[in-house]
Amino acid sequence: MTEGHRVAMLGTGLIGDFYTMTLHGRRSRDRVEVVYSRSTERGDAFKKRWDVPHATTSVEEAVQHPDVDTVVVGLPNHLHEEAISVAAAAGKPVLCTKPLGRSAEEAKRILDVVESAGVFAGYLEDLVYTPKTITSLAAVGRGAIGDVMWVRSRETHPGPHSAWFWDAELAGGGCIVDLGCHCIEIIRSYVGKTNRPVEVMCWSDTLVHPIDAEDNAIALIRFESGAVGQFEVSWTFRGGMDLRDEVAGTEGTIWTNHFLRTGFEMFSSGGGGYVAEKAETESGWLFPVGDEVAELGYVDMFTDMFDAIDQGREPVKTFYDGYVVNAVMDACFRSAKNRQWEPVELDWRYGTTERIGRPARTEDGLTVIKEEHLPDGRRKLILKDPASGEFVDRIV
Amino acid sequence: MTEGHRVAMLGTGLIGDFYTMTLHGRRSRDRVEVVYSRSTERGDAFKKRWDVPHATTSVEEAVQHPDVDTVVVGLPNHLHEEAISVAAAAGKPVLCTKPLGRSAEEAKRILDVVESAGVFAGYLEDLVYTPKTITSLAAVGRGAIGDVMWVRSRETHPGPHSAWFWDAELAGGGCIVDLGCHCIEIIRSYVGKTNRPVEVMCWSDTLVHPIDAEDNAIALIRFESGAVGQFEVSWTFRGGMDLRDEVAGTEGTIWTNHFLRTGFEMFSSGGGGYVAEKAETESGWLFPVGDEVAELGYVDMFTDMFDAIDQGREPVKTFYDGYVVNAVMDACFRSAKNRQWEPVELDWRYGTTERIGRPARTEDGLTVIKEEHLPDGRRKLILKDPASGEFVDRIV
Amino acid sequence: MTEGHRVAMLGTGLIGDFYTMTLHGRRSRDRVEVVYSRSTERGDAFKKRWDVPHATTSVEEAVQHPDVDTVVVGLPNHLHEEAISVAAAAGKPVLCTKPLGRSAEEAKRILDVVESAGVFAGYLEDLVYTPKTITSLAAVGRGAIGDVMWVRSRETHPGPHSAWFWDAELAGGGCIVDLGCHCIEIIRSYVGKTNRPVEVMCWSDTLVHPIDAEDNAIALIRFESGAVGQFEVSWTFRGGMDLRDEVAGTEGTIWTNHFLRTGFEMFSSGGGGYVAEKAETESGWLFPVGDEVAELGYVDMFTDMFDAIDQGREPVKTFYDGYVVNAVMDACFRSAKNRQWEPVELDWRYGTTERIGRPARTEDGLTVIKEEHLPDGRRKLILKDPASGEFVDRIV
Amino acid sequence: MTEGHRVAMLGTGLIGDFYTMTLHGRRSRDRVEVVYSRSTERGDAFKKRWDVPHATTSVEEAVQHPDVDTVVVGLPNHLHEEAISVAAAAGKPVLCTKPLGRSAEEAKRILDVVESAGVFAGYLEDLVYTPKTITSLAAVGRGAIGDVMWVRSRETHPGPHSAWFWDAELAGGGCIVDLGCHCIEIIRSYVGKTNRPVEVMCWSDTLVHPIDAEDNAIALIRFESGAVGQFEVSWTFRGGMDLRDEVAGTEGTIWTNHFLRTGFEMFSSGGGGYVAEKAETESGWLFPVGDEVAELGYVDMFTDMFDAIDQGREPVKTFYDGYVVNAVMDACFRSAKNRQWEPVELDWRYGTTERIGRPARTEDGLTVIKEEHLPDGRRKLILKDPASGEFVDRIV
Repeated sequence: MTEGHRVAMLGTGLIGDFYTMTLHGRRSRDRVEVVYSRSTERGDAFKKRWDVPHATTSVEEAVQHPDVDTVVVGLPNHLHEEAISVAAAAGKPVLCTKPLGRSAEEAKRILDVVESAGVFAGYLEDLVYTPKTITSLAAVGRGAIGDVMWVRSRETHPGPHSAWFWDAELAGGGCIVDLGCHCIEIIRSYVGKTNRPVEVMCWSDTLVHPIDAEDNAIALIRFESGAVGQFEVSWTFRGGMDLRDEVAGTEGTIWTNHFLRTGFEMFSSGGGGYVAEKAETESGWLFPVGDEVAELGYVDMFTDMFDAIDQGREPVKTFYDGYVVNAVMDACFRSAKNRQWEPVELDWRYGTTERIGRPARTEDGLTVIKEEHLPDGRRKLILKDPASGEFVDRIV
Repeated sequence: MTEGHRVAMLGTGLIGDFYTMTLHGRRSRDRVEVVYSRSTERGDAFKKRWDVPHATTSVEEAVQHPDVDTVVVGLPNHLHEEAISVAAAAGKPVLCTKPLGRSAEEAKRILDVVESAGVFAGYLEDLVYTPKTITSLAAVGRGAIGDVMWVRSRETHPGPHSAWFWDAELAGGGCIVDLGCHCIEIIRSYVGKTNRPVEVMCWSDTLVHPIDAEDNAIALIRFESGAVGQFEVSWTFRGGMDLRDEVAGTEGTIWTNHFLRTGFEMFSSGGGGYVAEKAETESGWLFPVGDEVAELGYVDMFTDMFDAIDQGREPVKTFYDGYVVNAVMDACFRSAKNRQWEPVELDWRYGTTERIGRPARTEDGLTVIKEEHLPDGRRKLILKDPASGEFVDRIV
Repeated sequence: MTEGHRVAMLGTGLIGDFYTMTLHGRRSRDRVEVVYSRSTERGDAFKKRWDVPHATTSVEEAVQHPDVDTVVVGLPNHLHEEAISVAAAAGKPVLCTKPLGRSAEEAKRILDVVESAGVFAGYLEDLVYTPKTITSLAAVGRGAIGDVMWVRSRETHPGPHSAWFWDAELAGGGCIVDLGCHCIEIIRSYVGKTNRPVEVMCWSDTLVHPIDAEDNAIALIRFESGAVGQFEVSWTFRGGMDLRDEVAGTEGTIWTNHFLRTGFEMFSSGGGGYVAEKAETESGWLFPVGDEVAELGYVDMFTDMFDAIDQGREPVKTFYDGYVVNAVMDACFRSAKNRQWEPVELDWRYGTTERIGRPARTEDGLTVIKEEHLPDGRRKLILKDPASGEFVDRIV
Repeated sequence: MTEGHRVAMLGTGLIGDFYTMTLHGRRSRDRVEVVYSRSTERGDAFKKRWDVPHATTSVEEAVQHPDVDTVVVGLPNHLHEEAISVAAAAGKPVLCTKPLGRSAEEAKRILDVVESAGVFAGYLEDLVYTPKTITSLAAVGRGAIGDVMWVRSRETHPGPHSAWFWDAELAGGGCIVDLGCHCIEIIRSYVGKTNRPVEVMCWSDTLVHPIDAEDNAIALIRFESGAVGQFEVSWTFRGGMDLRDEVAGTEGTIWTNHFLRTGFEMFSSGGGGYVAEKAETESGWLFPVGDEVAELGYVDMFTDMFDAIDQGREPVKTFYDGYVVNAVMDACFRSAKNRQWEPVELDWRYGTTERIGRPARTEDGLTVIKEEHLPDGRRKLILKDPASGEFVDRIV
């Protein structure tokens, strides 16, 4: 067993809290050693809240602190590039929250910086590490549902908690950038990360909030295998935070619900306080979560990241994955504007993927379209005559 | 209370069985008087199965039978137009299963025929009559979820039971025509039937079955109000028949599951026989339905149709609705081919609909983006300065 | 098809409304012809509400009305006996709401009255007719779950809506009499109505309401086959009306949820009005029901009753069943008082039932306790040596 | 942050595997240093499987190993007392799996041994540490559901995997001892551990398996506050492992499902392998679990135990709790035999608890039984006249 890690936490917002709660949780060996905030007040409050030895308003000081061996970037999107550059210059492993950049161009520069510096760089996409997703992906890997044809990933809630998210300039967009990035990586995990996202069709609109950025979007992503990913993101959903994935394979189906319907239901006439992130009410029927940081994947994510550093291997999600996500989102924005399918433009590193296919079966020279078992034990075949193109029912 | 109706049932397939089971069910006053089939054998079997007085292989004979006052068309799609013409010529009320036609052009001709003849014409779209949909629509009408912004309607299963469905020529298409027609009417019911479907973006593919028609499709339908409908249809889904709708409104959310998860769960080591339509297994965990014809809307649909005839009013779904559905599907096929948004081309009878909107709120001259209640009772506001465009957090 | 029925409805409370909504619903042939109420005001309101031709404050007048062919008793418990006597004297079929009497003694007198008069007598136990229960019972009958070993039937809500329910004298008890009667018949339906309820163990208490009657009770009912029924009833449950049944068989399991979790979920910020019977809130997460009278079994119950009258057969539930239920409830009250198992004292009409059993399997002379399939394909047996009584694991 | 713990793991069965998977999981500081098994073969396999430095067939050697600072007992029930004595003699902290003993008498001796020795002694009751239970208990503590009146805890599956469980002598009983012990501690956690279990009513039977021990049992436990706990345990359940708790409070309700319905559903035509502990099938609809050791509470349990050792405090569950559980189970066995309520005989260390109660409200001198809000905004009161005992409805 190796020693634990000493982390510089850059950022003190909601995500910094969740990350630190995770890092300090259970029997972990790892600790936040320094916290950086642009504001002395927020930095000191965080230091006290999480019992962190040092607070600073200098990124450099945080990163270069001699006790720090790993940098975690939990800053607003427009501050990622600079912070990562500082970490890369210091030669320290850096883990960055989602999205990596505000555009593929920015993400590519970030990727180049860490690759040039040769530092370990992990992309903190927590939702591909939820316990259900890990277990599902393993089942898909064992062939439990055949070839993946379709993945729906949905993340919707009533909107983020901090002002900068709503500023399209600072954030790089609206709910596509905030939530779509999660969905894209979940989808890629199911269809296979070496399966190239070829093109994108996206609709977006601003239906409720008085902002310039989109507050609703839906996109289809077509992969080289023929598989289609579908994401639905919204800042106008009512009822809490809806995090669901659905996967259709040639041999099976997977449905996961990560947050709002997990077998935990409570009715309260009021008085119980906090329910779960983005819950809208504290009375009536409520749907709490058992262990919030575990259900959202933070625990398994940091385990993978630190184990990868210790073992000298790549983590499950790297900065290259973050860059691919940005490239897909760029195509989404273009498609929403141009109102047509747009190619995903990126520097693709993984070869090619074959088309989903199933060998045709024949019976007496006819192509079998479908086979059903009748209640009386007989088989019913729907057959196609390849010569005439006619379809017939046959009971055998 | 009026007398019951005497029906000529045209067609003896699965849908004819479901319709007759419904018509003869419970304490109904209505009965099938004549059954028509192209095959003497199937007609006689049906006659015996449902205790129907007469069977014939002549549409004219069935329709013109003196005891018949209502014609129900449950034939393959390519036979709708002719059968309806016969009924219209006979001056009798006619009810037609979905889809009305194989194209908007065909549907328009059908519509013209019944309107010229002045006969009652009901469109048998059962899924807008499911008990949950009826109750949901009433709640939407009472304002329970505010303005409807998005509707997802999903209908997927492993593929239909008769050969003609698989023949793109006879059916008019694949799963879009078979299943998408349901979804489109469900979506229109939620966003408002007078809310014009403006344009459509559709993806389709043939991923599994060796057929020419599509076995998977996803479409977005943009309505005049800004609302978006989304349908997902498939003939390759594994696990039974997945019939779910989701509705997002500015003030609320609705989720309905009509078939596969209705609070009825059974584990069986085997031996119990029939589970539900399109169930794939008879052992392990099974999800039966309580009352299949009621859950699928058939019972309330025929109640509405016959009551409408008796009361001299329009039914909830008319042939005009069937024509609109065909027009939307035509746009889906064009969009899937042209790979861009395609306008829905139709003769629109209902005026215009206003854009979804919510009046902006201000506080101290700043636009309120979001308001949250903090655990300590204070309010947190996210505000936008209309002059500078800057966003700020403020605790009040 | 026979003519419909003309009903005298005795009682204008919630149950009279539900019954009449059902009788007048859909395409029914049957109608309420006369309504009886002790109060002119309530009778007239009911007459108007349901478009009933006649209202009266005389039971005799209602029952003896020449247009009436069937009497439905929907009165408070203490008025059943008298009303049924009047109907029996008039020689008309009588249907009585649950419970039949306030004690087995009263129920037996009621049973004797209708049997002496030779009139048709149906026991209106709606919950054995819910669509899910009907389908479940059919599956059990086909052997889908083997021998039934255990049934849990739970009915709980925050308490009834009328004063007389809370008066132990008029009602015959508290929630045992109000709700337990439903559960007992559900349990009997699953274990087999010819399976004698032998003895009962019951706990009851008054935990919340300032009343003499019990507001919570749990009972175990042991049947001759060895099967055990378990009911849980409460007038203090928070969150709506919880109607669930669970059945454990030697070969399978059934779970039904009739009301609160049926695949229909709504979130509302408020403003939608009525949700469902005994719902506690009108905002937040709500769980409406699709078709309330169908889900609660009223529709199928009256279908069975009228069909039985028309066909000259017994209905699924007769007054004898009502009497058995009262006998079980009497034993519950005795057991709750005496704090021990109490025999169910009744005049039993159905023979005897064999003990649940499964023939023992042996392997090499050892009794097989359990067989498991290991991941590597081998079988693991847990065996018992009948001579020594020792248990061993064996991999084969 | 303190150093991690070095554990002697006594026992190599399923529970030893689960414990070690947990201890070695994630970023833990703790490790199994020595494993003890009665069989050299099983010990060596375990050593290899979990990368444990040492294996031995001597309890003394394992416990006294100089690198070991904590002893974990994962042995069959009849071996607990001896192993704990060895650990106590060695003066080392000891953690023991459930149940503590085979009877209250044995448990009391075990308790005396560790208390005399003054060693830390933690009772490894994992199911009170499941993420949902921890979150629920916190909500109950904050008053979210008022006073707890009733707790149902259910644990059923098709039977255990090792021979000794089935031997009533070695195990101390059947499913009551195997599963009931979990339920009793869950129930105590909800009603309050200082709330004395006063008496017990239990039914048990051997319905399916050819064994002497009970394979089904249901018990009611009455606590001093008036609250009632209800457990249902079975070795004959079909469909996997059913772990559910339900809690009814005066102000709310909690339902938790820990294993079989957690928002994770998979349909597979076969080929995916392992699903979850005690899953019965590998095809059809399957219900896997996200993170099995977390969902079952092992992770949070060991966190509490080691933190308690490090902080010099008591863990959430001590050997005294284990002893109370055995005392309740003893009363269950007596009650099942004597067929009446039996007192729980134990040396009670926590004072007394007040009866659940709610102050009566009056309106105009009448006792308010229930208040409802009518759709038109008026209030309906059900009132009782304390003088006459009469109940009346009043609309205000």
